Amino acid sequence: MSKDSLDVKRHSAAHILAAAVQDLFKDVKFGVGPVVENGFYYDIEFPSNISEENLPGIEKKMKEMIKKNLNFEKEEMSIKDAIEYFEKAKQNYKVELLKDLEKKGTTKLSDEELQEVGEAVDKVTVYKTGNFVDLCRGPHVDSSNKINPKAFKLTKLAGAYWRGDENNKMITRIYGVLFDTKDELNDYLELLEEAKMLDHRKLGKELDLFTFSDLVGKGLPLWTEKGATIRRELENFVIEEEIKRGYKHVVTPELAKVDLYRKSGHYPYYKDTMYPPMEIDDEELILRPMTCPHHFMLYSDKKRSYRELPMRIAELARLFRYEKSGELTGMLRVRSFCLADAHIVCMEEQAKEEIKQVIELIDYISGVLGLEKGKDYSYRLSLGDREDEKKYYKDDKAWDCAEKILRETLGEIKAPFEEAKGDAAFYGPKIDIQMKNVLGKEDTAFTIQYDFCMPERFEMTYVDKDGEEKRPIVIHRSSIGAIERTFAFLIEKYAGAFPLWLSPIQVHFVPVSEKHIVGTRELADRFKEAGIRIEIDEADETVGNKVRKAVGQKIPYIVVVGDDELSGGELKVRVRGRNDQIQTKRDEFIERLKKEIKEKK
Amino acid sequence: MSKDSLDVKRHSAAHILAAAVQDLFKDVKFGVGPVVENGFYYDIEFPSNISEENLPGIEKKMKEMIKKNLNFEKEEMSIKDAIEYFEKAKQNYKVELLKDLEKKGTTKLSDEELQEVGEAVDKVTVYKTGNFVDLCRGPHVDSSNKINPKAFKLTKLAGAYWRGDENNKMITRIYGVLFDTKDELNDYLELLEEAKMLDHRKLGKELDLFTFSDLVGKGLPLWTEKGATIRRELENFVIEEEIKRGYKHVVTPELAKVDLYRKSGHYPYYKDTMYPPMEIDDEELILRPMTCPHHFMLYSDKKRSYRELPMRIAELARLFRYEKSGELTGMLRVRSFCLADAHIVCMEEQAKEEIKQVIELIDYISGVLGLEKGKDYSYRLSLGDREDEKKYYKDDKAWDCAEKILRETLGEIKAPFEEAKGDAAFYGPKIDIQMKNVLGKEDTAFTIQYDFCMPERFEMTYVDKDGEEKRPIVIHRSSIGAIERTFAFLIEKYAGAFPLWLSPIQVHFVPVSEKHIVGTRELADRFKEAGIRIEIDEADETVGNKVRKAVGQKIPYIVVVGDDELSGGELKVRVRGRNDQIQTKRDEFIERLKKEIKEKK
Repeated sequence: MSKDSLDVKRHSAAHILAAAVQDLFKDVKFGVGPVVENGFYYDIEFPSNISEENLPGIEKKMKEMIKKNLNFEKEEMSIKDAIEYFEKAKQNYKVELLKDLEKKGTTKLSDEELQEVGEAVDKVTVYKTGNFVDLCRGPHVDSSNKINPKAFKLTKLAGAYWRGDENNKMITRIYGVLFDTKDELNDYLELLEEAKMLDHRKLGKELDLFTFSDLVGKGLPLWTEKGATIRRELENFVIEEEIKRGYKHVVTPELAKVDLYRKSGHYPYYKDTMYPPMEIDDEELILRPMTCPHHFMLYSDKKRSYRELPMRIAELARLFRYEKSGELTGMLRVRSFCLADAHIVCMEEQAKEEIKQVIELIDYISGVLGLEKGKDYSYRLSLGDREDEKKYYKDDKAWDCAEKILRETLGEIKAPFEEAKGDAAFYGPKIDIQMKNVLGKEDTAFTIQYDFCMPERFEMTYVDKDGEEKRPIVIHRSSIGAIERTFAFLIEKYAGAFPLWLSPIQVHFVPVSEKHIVGTRELADRFKEAGIRIEIDEADETVGNKVRKAVGQKIPYIVVVGDDELSGGELKVRVRGRNDQIQTKRDEFIERLKKEIKEKK
Repeated sequence: MSKDSLDVKRHSAAHILAAAVQDLFKDVKFGVGPVVENGFYYDIEFPSNISEENLPGIEKKMKEMIKKNLNFEKEEMSIKDAIEYFEKAKQNYKVELLKDLEKKGTTKLSDEELQEVGEAVDKVTVYKTGNFVDLCRGPHVDSSNKINPKAFKLTKLAGAYWRGDENNKMITRIYGVLFDTKDELNDYLELLEEAKMLDHRKLGKELDLFTFSDLVGKGLPLWTEKGATIRRELENFVIEEEIKRGYKHVVTPELAKVDLYRKSGHYPYYKDTMYPPMEIDDEELILRPMTCPHHFMLYSDKKRSYRELPMRIAELARLFRYEKSGELTGMLRVRSFCLADAHIVCMEEQAKEEIKQVIELIDYISGVLGLEKGKDYSYRLSLGDREDEKKYYKDDKAWDCAEKILRETLGEIKAPFEEAKGDAAFYGPKIDIQMKNVLGKEDTAFTIQYDFCMPERFEMTYVDKDGEEKRPIVIHRSSIGAIERTFAFLIEKYAGAFPLWLSPIQVHFVPVSEKHIVGTRELADRFKEAGIRIEIDEADETVGNKVRKAVGQKIPYIVVVGDDELSGGELKVRVRGRNDQIQTKRDEFIERLKKEIKEKK
């Protein structure tokens, strides 16, 4: 890491933050202060609570310190001496880390904690900045003047359990962002502001799409009528498209015996992210975290012939995974979700063609949803770290063959892709579909996995032309990912202004006054009969008010209905995102809507 | 019970069965031998296994005994003497029952066991028939000649855990049926034979509609592609129809905190039929057995106005209930199912109209499914036993009012109905939809419930015209019941020959030879594009064979494709259930199919 790199500056700024806090407040105790994406944070215990109003003051103090050209002085100490030093300074969190290091070595420490204690087990380094002395592996800038005082900002406060453990005390985390230049900082802050406006949690509430309930439980979303309408459209679209492409859509139970996941080998790998087992009579049942073994049971329910391959078994499968409560994020990270899942059982020589078709399907579905390849999503080839036999099923020949097939397939269809090592599933390599959110943050949305392992474990076979029983391979894939996550992504992508076919309300009618209500209902009925989702605002408010509310709800078409419209005149339609209105006959408008819905534009 | 009633005869026949077994086999030990619907059974431990082949021999012996005019001699004994007697006879099962009676009284005994020991706690009766002495509360016929030896039959053998407990030994249960006359017996046996052919489990396997897997778990069905197709059609039909009628379809999680069910009051009542709780972090979660509290959470997520009522919140809700493994029956009784559920939140004065509309919806949906009111299903009014305060929420005024509303509603729409006391939900009276299966057995398929209790518990409110917060009432209802159960019912009702819109395969194509395959695929594509579900049998078999198989699969239309058809000639279509074929042009046929599917006939 270069001494003047952005990350070094960010880490150094964390120290300056701590030094400023030490100057301004009495009896503060410091946890850890690592670098994170775009900035840094520091976990600090204050004797009495502080609020976001304290941040400008701290920021001011930091700027003063930066301008003083403070040096970052490094000193090596034995662990013993360091413990003594921090005990004297009453820094019990630092002492705890040091004692842990002394007892257990570095293995039990988190990445953030390692930034403090370093990787050596016999000695540690401390850095001195002004009056602040911190345990830290470094490196740091030589002097605080390397940091541009106009290019950083403290952004927020949050509560954080010490060492991420809910059983520990909650202390205060102060976040900051830091860049090289003021312009870069401002660009980032603007993006952040925009992202806040686009946050699917905020929009989800404003547009009444989903909600959560303390009494129901964490990470368990409730889809309102409007959200459920979008979900149904997405699901029906996926099912219809997949069936067209030869998928067999099935329905399998949300739970199974733990033995099923022992047989698949998932249980040891995924145990920590599964719900706890339930005992019923003599069975030990568990909510399923994935669909594969269920589909294998369906496959193996009968003797299969080569004629039946490739067999594409698909399901909108409801799955259940334990996510830490701190990681739950609206619809993006939940504890129960619905994956558009499928398992293609085929011969090895059919694999390439099948994978190509899967990628074609993904491109098609993403395209309809308005996602651009290269911009919104891209492909990544994830390979296994073969040396890690604990994490990967041992079969070098099969891994070679599978990796070759995936790499060649991506090459043949000329899909640009990156490679990543050590990110494969335990049963084979995979192609990741990487999505970028509005902040440019990339995440694996879903995957295409090549599996030579499960067919062995489940003794899956087919009878070949020659009458011999042979072993197929399996391609695990999704086409749209988890409905919840895709939904969150689409909300942010469209800022809630969904394309017509996904809009929960497609046309909003505003009767001018009470005497127009009955006529508006009759008019609206024509739209309903044509399968168009409508809504009438019959509230006793002004037309302007009602239109404004409908605009705020991002409804694609708004029609005000008065004497003129009810006596057979043309409808004046306010189109979302346009300032002028279009004028159209009722039936023409209905036909236009039907066409637009059908074309999913 | 009259001394010569059918049940007395059946119970007496159980004794004769035991007496015959005692005569034919050595060292047999007798469990219990109660009366059941249409007959009786006896649980017997044989020293070595017997098979169904032994039944005619036992039956013959029984007939001989009946003809001997054996008396049923009654004798009273103290429990002590009875224990001594059966200990000597090495009848350890009888001894166990007697000792249980001695220790705990009658409370711990099942209905079947009570038929043995009687209700008195100080003495018991034994009956002697030939050489067989049995503990039995009676009554019995005076002499075996009251039983018509031509009007009974031993029907089957089954394994049964002693006292229904899986931890106990499994012994042999012999079932018999008995009527007054030979004709009645024959009628019943014929019906039984027919029902066996129609059994949805048998048809489900033959038509490849669903399956179960030992590794997945008991009572957890896996829907194959064909079964899932029917399910999807049913679900889409219900959702579409309900949305048309103003229901708001939502999606809520399959699990929730146990606290939610404590608040609703379900937990104490339904605990035994719920899955065990799962602990996650600081939450105690449980799979939901019903949807109501989830929907109440959605209702109370916002302040509601009188304008929004009635609010009809609907969901195809996946639910989980523990059923004893002995009670699981194909798709009819499962441990996870999907209920077409809804909760109508409304004002008391809206309730009647809402219930009428619910009944209208049920009649409509049932009608489309081909179910006849009065024949296939009927209504029953279930009232609460007010004196049982443990089982029923105490509020006499509210019960009176609710019962009056339900009774009047059924009266006003002139729906014939029966009344049943003590069958209500704990939170209010209900209307049961009673379905009759092919054997004429009636079961509650689903219900309409009037609920004045939950709105209190969940503090549900709406703001009325006058600005006051008021309490709504809730109507719980289904429209089609559990998809699984309805599916089982439809399979049996149609003997697998589903109406076209529900048929997983609508048109089956049989190419005459290999050279017709490509042309057949092109022809079939036209049907696919029109949204018709087709299948091509490309196997290397004779046309006759392939047609026969398709007929066996009860496919509505079968088209054999040869030179003639491929050179533009009319299609010759074999119609299910008809001997002649229809001749039609391709496009005409497609239009005919589309119309038939749309009309759901």
